[in-house]
Amino acid sequence: MISGSLKSGLDSHEVGSWLSGEGPDGEIVISSRIRLARNLTGLKFLGYTSDPEQEEILKSVNQSLSAALISHGRGLVEVDDLSPLEAQFLLERHLLSPDFLKSNAKRGFFTTVDESFSLMVNEEDHLRLQMFGSGLCLENLWDSMGKIDERLNSVMPFSFDERYGFLTACPTNVGTGMRASILIHLPGVVLTKEIDRVLRGVLQLGLSVRGTYGEGTETKGHLFQVSNQRTLGQSEEEIVSTLTKMASQLIKYEQEAREYISTKMSSYIEDKLYRSIGILKYARMLTSDETLNLLSTLRFGIGRFPNLTAGRLNKLIVLTRPANLQLFFGEELTPEQRDRKRSDLVKRALKNVEA
Amino acid sequence: MISGSLKSGLDSHEVGSWLSGEGPDGEIVISSRIRLARNLTGLKFLGYTSDPEQEEILKSVNQSLSAALISHGRGLVEVDDLSPLEAQFLLERHLLSPDFLKSNAKRGFFTTVDESFSLMVNEEDHLRLQMFGSGLCLENLWDSMGKIDERLNSVMPFSFDERYGFLTACPTNVGTGMRASILIHLPGVVLTKEIDRVLRGVLQLGLSVRGTYGEGTETKGHLFQVSNQRTLGQSEEEIVSTLTKMASQLIKYEQEAREYISTKMSSYIEDKLYRSIGILKYARMLTSDETLNLLSTLRFGIGRFPNLTAGRLNKLIVLTRPANLQLFFGEELTPEQRDRKRSDLVKRALKNVEA
Repeated sequence: MISGSLKSGLDSHEVGSWLSGEGPDGEIVISSRIRLARNLTGLKFLGYTSDPEQEEILKSVNQSLSAALISHGRGLVEVDDLSPLEAQFLLERHLLSPDFLKSNAKRGFFTTVDESFSLMVNEEDHLRLQMFGSGLCLENLWDSMGKIDERLNSVMPFSFDERYGFLTACPTNVGTGMRASILIHLPGVVLTKEIDRVLRGVLQLGLSVRGTYGEGTETKGHLFQVSNQRTLGQSEEEIVSTLTKMASQLIKYEQEAREYISTKMSSYIEDKLYRSIGILKYARMLTSDETLNLLSTLRFGIGRFPNLTAGRLNKLIVLTRPANLQLFFGEELTPEQRDRKRSDLVKRALKNVEA
Repeated sequence: MISGSLKSGLDSHEVGSWLSGEGPDGEIVISSRIRLARNLTGLKFLGYTSDPEQEEILKSVNQSLSAALISHGRGLVEVDDLSPLEAQFLLERHLLSPDFLKSNAKRGFFTTVDESFSLMVNEEDHLRLQMFGSGLCLENLWDSMGKIDERLNSVMPFSFDERYGFLTACPTNVGTGMRASILIHLPGVVLTKEIDRVLRGVLQLGLSVRGTYGEGTETKGHLFQVSNQRTLGQSEEEIVSTLTKMASQLIKYEQEAREYISTKMSSYIEDKLYRSIGILKYARMLTSDETLNLLSTLRFGIGRFPNLTAGRLNKLIVLTRPANLQLFFGEELTPEQRDRKRSDLVKRALKNVEA
């Protein structure tokens, strides 16, 4: 398989615009994300539908995408048509969910080329809409998402109850059907050992935290995903506002931690930073986890080395994930081949980062 | 303290000629060493002597060194006149023993500028003579040492018994008074997990093994010191011959292990080698143990990188030990300052090693 032939229409050499690092506070907040769970009115929830009914949902969504002027000619991709590698590639890009890939339902998927908007059909609900943006931008994101939601609702009305709000397959999503989250990089808070205290504060506010690219709550590369837990009894604006306030708080903690580090632990961090550059530039084999951790440390060098930008590091973090790497090089690779190719890619990308 | 002012007469920027790496099998055998324990005839063993008697021994040895044309004008240095830093420096260079430094006796010390021959007065015995050579060269070493031994014996007769041989303070040295050893680098045998089996074979031959720069039997940097245990009932030639045969065997094992590695584990070793270069070139702080281990791994690159020679690595291993490092830079340093200066020194030394 070569790049360009991807069913999803994505370019395996590029990453989503939400990884540009150029959004507000992009040095600390990688991205913002809003996801909406929606179901088509007059139809059963997915768990009670037959194959023909699932096909019907796919068809209906496909038509609505065109009618709402979203798909611009390229409609849904059927998930069964994706190669296992491309499916994994989309999972690594956070465009598909693990549950979606495991399911036996007739599933469809759509993404804009810049990956800012995507949707899954017949995941847990008939529709899961998703928007990504760079940095801390939940308010703008909800603005855009709200408009898309309305456009779609006008061509395919969503299941809605005056009292409960949007109806969803699982009660935990009823109400707004919204999950808003930010992906935030907190190496300073971790290194100053303040992370447990900080995360307790996040949980007390009724938010939830998990690592990214990690199983369960394990965090890798000092990356944390913070999201709302409640969907009922709060408006979308309230959810966005609570999360934005918490994010601003976390940014402040992280800035303070980095300031502390730069006075008290500077030689330790400097050493860690330079070693990471040394290993990334010289290693002949790099696993994806080690790469993630080393690139995470390199974020300390943003602003210090002219060619080291948040966007460049974000891009490398995604392109070095296993499936992304294989599609970047346009071939299936064994784990050992991947580790070698990954080090090639990293070396090339960091060539003009001089220490 | 600045280099050049060292009491021992050594240059803190140079290391002993026995570290040149140019001796036979110098890529695997760092060095050979022969040590003789001798006592002056007609005098009590050290443990039974008074301070004036110890002074007398020092004086007598000093005169004999000139008479035997060994000291060339520069006589014994009194150990109490050495700064703690220079004493540590000489310990790191294997010219003084730990026990010698701890002792309360009146002690004297002499070394040639190239460190090939040195002696301690009033260590456990009145005299401990020591010769170092590059690579596997025990036979040549014994040849030279035998001559020095005879020259000294002719001007200050040594305690000798027709039946037992040379008499020593501790019975474990009676007979030849000789301890012969080689310092050998066995990363291949360690990496292929054959080291335990190999060392058992060494012990079965009545030889003893220990690590270098390590406490007790701990080995660091894959460096092992193999020496004879028996001094009685074997001639010097037999000791030298047994040890030389064992060394040749170990060299063969190591070569086989490296060959195996280069076919089966080549990418693993290659990666380890390049990472070591990356860390040594980029780290801002290096402890002496980490440096030893990284430099040990770099020995795999001898012959692969034009500017990487065994002699250069041997030299760096010694110059980066704590006291050597401080005397190299001509100042006392805190542990953190040492780690920074060590990385400076290493970076400078490896500047023209390009990967």
